[in-house]
Amino acid sequence: METTADTRAVVVGAGLAGPLLASMIARHGHQVDMVEGRPDPRAVRHEGGRSINLGMSARAITSLREVGLWEEARRLSVPMRGRMVHNGGEPAFYPYGKDPSEILHSIRRDALVRLLVEHAEKQPGVRLHFDNRCVGVDRDAPGVTLADGTRLDADFVVGADGASSLVRTELQRGLPADFSRKYLEWGYKEVTIRATPDGAPAIPLEALHIWPGERGLGVAHPNVDNSLTVTLFVPREESPERMSEVFPHLATLVPDLDEQATAAPMSHLTTVRTEQWHYQDKLVILGDAAHAIYPFYGQGMNSSFEDCLVLDRMLARHPYDRQAAFSAYERARKPHTDVLADLSELNFLELRDGMRSPLRLAKNRLDLLLHKAFPRTWVPLYTLVSHTTVPYGDALRRARRQDRVAAALAATTAGLGAAGLLAAFRRHRRNHR
Amino acid sequence: METTADTRAVVVGAGLAGPLLASMIARHGHQVDMVEGRPDPRAVRHEGGRSINLGMSARAITSLREVGLWEEARRLSVPMRGRMVHNGGEPAFYPYGKDPSEILHSIRRDALVRLLVEHAEKQPGVRLHFDNRCVGVDRDAPGVTLADGTRLDADFVVGADGASSLVRTELQRGLPADFSRKYLEWGYKEVTIRATPDGAPAIPLEALHIWPGERGLGVAHPNVDNSLTVTLFVPREESPERMSEVFPHLATLVPDLDEQATAAPMSHLTTVRTEQWHYQDKLVILGDAAHAIYPFYGQGMNSSFEDCLVLDRMLARHPYDRQAAFSAYERARKPHTDVLADLSELNFLELRDGMRSPLRLAKNRLDLLLHKAFPRTWVPLYTLVSHTTVPYGDALRRARRQDRVAAALAATTAGLGAAGLLAAFRRHRRNHR
Repeated sequence: METTADTRAVVVGAGLAGPLLASMIARHGHQVDMVEGRPDPRAVRHEGGRSINLGMSARAITSLREVGLWEEARRLSVPMRGRMVHNGGEPAFYPYGKDPSEILHSIRRDALVRLLVEHAEKQPGVRLHFDNRCVGVDRDAPGVTLADGTRLDADFVVGADGASSLVRTELQRGLPADFSRKYLEWGYKEVTIRATPDGAPAIPLEALHIWPGERGLGVAHPNVDNSLTVTLFVPREESPERMSEVFPHLATLVPDLDEQATAAPMSHLTTVRTEQWHYQDKLVILGDAAHAIYPFYGQGMNSSFEDCLVLDRMLARHPYDRQAAFSAYERARKPHTDVLADLSELNFLELRDGMRSPLRLAKNRLDLLLHKAFPRTWVPLYTLVSHTTVPYGDALRRARRQDRVAAALAATTAGLGAAGLLAAFRRHRRNHR
Repeated sequence: METTADTRAVVVGAGLAGPLLASMIARHGHQVDMVEGRPDPRAVRHEGGRSINLGMSARAITSLREVGLWEEARRLSVPMRGRMVHNGGEPAFYPYGKDPSEILHSIRRDALVRLLVEHAEKQPGVRLHFDNRCVGVDRDAPGVTLADGTRLDADFVVGADGASSLVRTELQRGLPADFSRKYLEWGYKEVTIRATPDGAPAIPLEALHIWPGERGLGVAHPNVDNSLTVTLFVPREESPERMSEVFPHLATLVPDLDEQATAAPMSHLTTVRTEQWHYQDKLVILGDAAHAIYPFYGQGMNSSFEDCLVLDRMLARHPYDRQAAFSAYERARKPHTDVLADLSELNFLELRDGMRSPLRLAKNRLDLLLHKAFPRTWVPLYTLVSHTTVPYGDALRRARRQDRVAAALAATTAGLGAAGLLAAFRRHRRNHR
């Protein structure tokens, strides 16, 4: 398609969605400048303060396939076939889906960013600017000013610049755009479960590990080097020196837990909701800039990548009317990312309280049982969100219909209430030991 | 008090609260630089796009008295003794309070700003910088950078820079500070009811006039030149050419209503709620920067001035510990401005729907009746908010207690329900014709 060959875009932010979108739109002949304040990720090994691991599921996989990167990304990742819950004694394993295709893939953030940046750089028309922060955005004569004084003009600017997006601030300046930013009363610190002296993983690698704590939640993602990265979610005022008390079952695996936690920064978790994702045909935002969410549904990166996919499709669908493309993108995405924000908040409560609740776990298992028995007609919400690309809002509506069916079933088979659930739970707990 | 004689402050924003605070803290020996992007208000006659009139009530009066400006402000204002509601036919008058002291005072925004700026300029140690926008705020080495490149260093910076506060953005950067900005689906335009050719007011001057519209609300404040400024609140998508249809009873007074409305810009209304009003002992925000509210309770300027009063008192109370002063100020104010934001949202609904409702008007009258009969024990919420300096949250709690008493009364005197209210309403309507 040659119609957009003269179109110039600036993409602000090379975190995750930025380089993916740059690669996508370069295919239609866009000239793209991607700017980023941090150093080139290929020149540094580690980035502090941000979550190290990501779980790629259906939406990320579909988006990476679109630019031919999925197989390479898969090789850099470790499959997670289910949750392993550590409550003392033998950990219990709960598979993610009904079959081996319904799994997640744990990848280090820096490895994925490097892969995406390398790919973007190879696309004709894409230029990268690292170590040069965007300090000013111009809305009416679209373009950006960089920290070193460089001015980049463009036909449009894409804000992939995260929850504190500068592009968003300029986009919404003086416009009646609702905006909210809400911080969770819990933050997180990251610590490591090292491989054993002979190089083997200290606990089974192919799972997402969960430690329900007393006022705390530990979650570990596996790494390709057989270590695991543990994210400790705790109330922000919690003392790092108390981690071995909060997570006693983790402390047996990580002898220096308190020391590691004391050395790690406390990071914050925020939900950003806003409207007005685009300004005319000149500015547009995506990913965290448009809808930062809590990480508890594992959909932050997945939903940002899906934004890129939808925005790219809309640009291809409206090659002569970019404002229509931006507007269609916003209409197509916002209702669903709003639902995702709700689900991610709710999942915090579920994970915090539910992993100790036999009833909740039984409900999850029953959902999977029904899914196995009726794979097309009964699909749990978690499966719809993580293992399909059904839009989030549609997934929620479908899950609600299923819940109504379940309630009707329960009413007609009175007696199969909590007792029945508990029996199902015990039966399946035995089977999975 | 000489303890703060070496303390330097920068106040960003000379809108309303800025110059009042500058005058207040200068009395304790603070050196104050006040910076403002707009021109000196004494050099220009009119400021477009912002609400022209303000209603001074108890809180503003108390604050202005504190710096000796109340009598002068009163001379620039017109008393409003009650609401006059135009529903066709003879307008109905509803007094604001039980006696002549419980009234509001209508003043033009520009006149009040000029008075405050002139007073601030006379204080020793106060320097004014107009036409020089603050473009950068420094949090750790407190100070600001102005548009012309000037750098002003200080011990602390006060953000009186409105709903889009730059000081607030810097204050909260990277901190887990919740923030929300919500726009009302209605905006406003301002038009004028001119004085008659012989210079007399076209309608009685000493009232706040209200035109309940079909999906619209018109509110007029009197001016000292016998004109009245009408604020037309309408859904943002409303056509300005339809104003004479929306407000038929106003159109008879303003023949060129549609022309005036077409020429006027549509302004927006926003509620800003946030936490973290200060950063260490270095930055602090007040007024709209901390709690922009809808104008429907008439408390925007009143509450901002009260912020100044409280902040000034806390600075005087903690002369050697400014962080303690800022912290005490935030704790003292935020719970009450949160309540005010709620009341202001609620009053939009009341004004929009209630001015057509005989029952709502009867309830207001009954409240005033009881207030007259039991002036100390029965004080309507509106009176507590507008004619006292009882903190907003305490006012709401007291009103709730009264509502419970009223409900208990109603239960014991069953039968005196809607019919009784309506009779009371009709009786008083007669009395006030």
